[in-house]
Amino acid sequence: MAHLLSTHCTMKLSINAKVYTNLPNHHPKALFTSLPVHTYKHPSKSLVFHKRKDPKHHVFYATAVPMSKEAETQIASGSHQSSSGPSKPKRVMIIGGDGYCGWATALHLSNRNYEVCIVDSLVRRLFDHQLGLDSLTPIASIHDRIRRWKSLTGKTIQLHIGDICDFEFLSEAFKSFEPDSVVHFGEQRSAPYSMIDRSRAVFTQHNNVIGTLNVLFAIKEYQEECHLVKLGTMGEYGTPNIDIEEGYITITHNGRTDTLPYPKQASSFYHLSKVHDSHNIAFTCKAWGIRATDLNQGVVYGVRTDEMEMHEELCNRFDYDGVFGTALNRFCVQAAVGHPLTIYGKGGQTRGYLDIRDTVQCVELAIANPAKHGEFRVFNQFTEQFSVNDLSRLVTKAGKKLGLEVQTISVPNPRVEAEEHYYNAKHTKLVELGLQPHLLSDSLLDSLLNFAITYKDRVDKAQIMPSVSWKKIGAKPQTVTA
Amino acid sequence: MAHLLSTHCTMKLSINAKVYTNLPNHHPKALFTSLPVHTYKHPSKSLVFHKRKDPKHHVFYATAVPMSKEAETQIASGSHQSSSGPSKPKRVMIIGGDGYCGWATALHLSNRNYEVCIVDSLVRRLFDHQLGLDSLTPIASIHDRIRRWKSLTGKTIQLHIGDICDFEFLSEAFKSFEPDSVVHFGEQRSAPYSMIDRSRAVFTQHNNVIGTLNVLFAIKEYQEECHLVKLGTMGEYGTPNIDIEEGYITITHNGRTDTLPYPKQASSFYHLSKVHDSHNIAFTCKAWGIRATDLNQGVVYGVRTDEMEMHEELCNRFDYDGVFGTALNRFCVQAAVGHPLTIYGKGGQTRGYLDIRDTVQCVELAIANPAKHGEFRVFNQFTEQFSVNDLSRLVTKAGKKLGLEVQTISVPNPRVEAEEHYYNAKHTKLVELGLQPHLLSDSLLDSLLNFAITYKDRVDKAQIMPSVSWKKIGAKPQTVTA
Repeated sequence: MAHLLSTHCTMKLSINAKVYTNLPNHHPKALFTSLPVHTYKHPSKSLVFHKRKDPKHHVFYATAVPMSKEAETQIASGSHQSSSGPSKPKRVMIIGGDGYCGWATALHLSNRNYEVCIVDSLVRRLFDHQLGLDSLTPIASIHDRIRRWKSLTGKTIQLHIGDICDFEFLSEAFKSFEPDSVVHFGEQRSAPYSMIDRSRAVFTQHNNVIGTLNVLFAIKEYQEECHLVKLGTMGEYGTPNIDIEEGYITITHNGRTDTLPYPKQASSFYHLSKVHDSHNIAFTCKAWGIRATDLNQGVVYGVRTDEMEMHEELCNRFDYDGVFGTALNRFCVQAAVGHPLTIYGKGGQTRGYLDIRDTVQCVELAIANPAKHGEFRVFNQFTEQFSVNDLSRLVTKAGKKLGLEVQTISVPNPRVEAEEHYYNAKHTKLVELGLQPHLLSDSLLDSLLNFAITYKDRVDKAQIMPSVSWKKIGAKPQTVTA
Repeated sequence: MAHLLSTHCTMKLSINAKVYTNLPNHHPKALFTSLPVHTYKHPSKSLVFHKRKDPKHHVFYATAVPMSKEAETQIASGSHQSSSGPSKPKRVMIIGGDGYCGWATALHLSNRNYEVCIVDSLVRRLFDHQLGLDSLTPIASIHDRIRRWKSLTGKTIQLHIGDICDFEFLSEAFKSFEPDSVVHFGEQRSAPYSMIDRSRAVFTQHNNVIGTLNVLFAIKEYQEECHLVKLGTMGEYGTPNIDIEEGYITITHNGRTDTLPYPKQASSFYHLSKVHDSHNIAFTCKAWGIRATDLNQGVVYGVRTDEMEMHEELCNRFDYDGVFGTALNRFCVQAAVGHPLTIYGKGGQTRGYLDIRDTVQCVELAIANPAKHGEFRVFNQFTEQFSVNDLSRLVTKAGKKLGLEVQTISVPNPRVEAEEHYYNAKHTKLVELGLQPHLLSDSLLDSLLNFAITYKDRVDKAQIMPSVSWKKIGAKPQTVTA
């Protein structure tokens, strides 16, 4: 360990640092199995954790101490900033870095020689426990993930475990890491989850809105230059009968013209929380000069990124259940296990989609080309539009090639949404920055289906059907039976 | 007391009811001085109250038990519903009924023979204590207010003291009162308050957004027919360079047309909370069939309504300080005490204004003409537009008539807002329902100034100047020094 660090820099220790020396460095696994890992419970909402007395112990470095500022400047970074020679690597805080998009992004940016720090409460894993769900893929703990990454690449990903709704915790993370960019995936991200019952609706809006407010205050207070890259959703726009623009629309009305925020029509408490975030962020850009990029992301599919291929312990989560599973991923699992593809209602629901390899690419493009001070920039982050019926046809055809007989059933739509509608959303800004899309192809569908087949014995078929109704949600807390 | 009730109905008691019998009824004051009033602390956020063990004791009837449903049908109501003979009076729950607009509305509707129930946590009074502020007018406790009203008119206003963010409390209030309409004033309503520090910003958005979510769930769960009349603000729209419509705008874009929610550009965490509410309510109208009216209110001025003239214990609050005082009211107090009128920046800021007598009229019009099931209706609730400079000129002129020498000073604008801008907002829907506006006139300004002069010895001049900066807000909690 000492060796790994000393190849790069002279270490400068802070009083909070945990330094592990005199460990063998020739065997990656040995580096970590004997480490004194803190089993840490973070003060937070009662839903998640229990309160501890001393709030000063929030920060937990799962790996080594961060390198000193002076030392870093000596590193020859492989990131794009270094093309003209050695430069200081950019420091990126990834809130929600243990999740589906967050983990893929953390690895991608670390691999590209960004200094990466994951901030996560791990509450997404708790949701699985509470709802009796599990990822299709076995996923390692965040501690093992980060250790494995270090053992394979020598790269350190910092880890701060805690809840960003706890501002004291978030402040410590900001002050110790001093991010140049914050990528904020750290929100409850399932529409059905937000529609289970009143307490989940309230949790979703509180968690997402207050967490984002805290991030904005932390930037203002501690790191004014920091660029916020916030994950929004295409669902903020709903399905208007006119073209969807990227964040703003120029309106001529009664002989006058203005460019205004694009009207929002979200259709779940989750989607609404993102609308609230967007309004809050826009205000702070104007009032405080915050620089922010809102990535209104479409539905993400796929699981493999370059980094994940390196070791199974780096494998990402893959959700196929009715609460967290999204359309194309869920269809692939259904095809793999011989479950009919479940089309909600008429299946004409059209949305933007993208490969997870494009998610990580888009985030990097946003970081590398930051918003200006006071700018609230909105990118629509997807590469192609499909209707649910389009996807079912594609999966049926791809399944046939693999010898799968894929059935399709229409189930009553648990959501309240238009099932046949106009949809034409712009998505040129990320392409202009250099996005090279991985479009949905036969070969990708083959590999996704094969991936699902590999893990099909892990599928709990009872989790496939939609279990949450937009209309039946009530005030009574819902508990999943065993 | 028994007599007062028995003139109307046969009482039906519930187990939670407190009934006060055998009291003399000939002297109004005697009715109440000997009542065993509960000094009750409600479980709530730590900011406000301390937790008690038994949550079943939330409901506190400050006056008598509500009458039974069967009995009420026998009452010959004087409300507009009764013009064709005896009818069941409409039951209106007023959340935030102890506040400036809420109290005036409660009295007005009670006077018009609505069955009125006030739900309030009284936290607005706590804000005054914490910030060292006070109403220009001495205001009685909510208990004394309601008792005085009863003694003067024989009319009962129910009182439920508690926090609507506590769903268990709100549920009990809904189940016991069974409102036909809910008028929701129960939000932190000051833009500067929301910009004091991080914790007040977070409090404002949490309190307002979660409180409204709870109201929506309570309607869905217990009272699906109930019409929500929600106080929004004209500030949700900001100051776009095109005409402001009432909630929606028809947009033609790339050859297609749709009518969409009017774009929102709020300019404080408070105003943003109202934007969030509007989006949440619109969704529940669509998904659950909630019937709702969003009253995007302008700046309210004045204090006297017909009911308040009846007794000084009914007097409304009147805020003139830099946190809760609004433009015209504050100018009148400044003129009365010889403080220069404080114009923020250039003074070209133009907004919609209305007399508090029109607030109560508008709310009644909304209740009497409810939204349809699933309808999210938006009314712009103001009667005239003025710039800050317009108001200062009007107050200066009116002051001169009363022998006051009114000075004007420009102070650095503590807000982030356009100081010269186009502003043309529609406000025809309430007029179409029958609103007869009390426009700002010389005589009204005379009476407002005279009112301020009456109480001028109560003015704390130190509270007049703006003390909250939109740009300087930080994470550190702000405490007011003595």
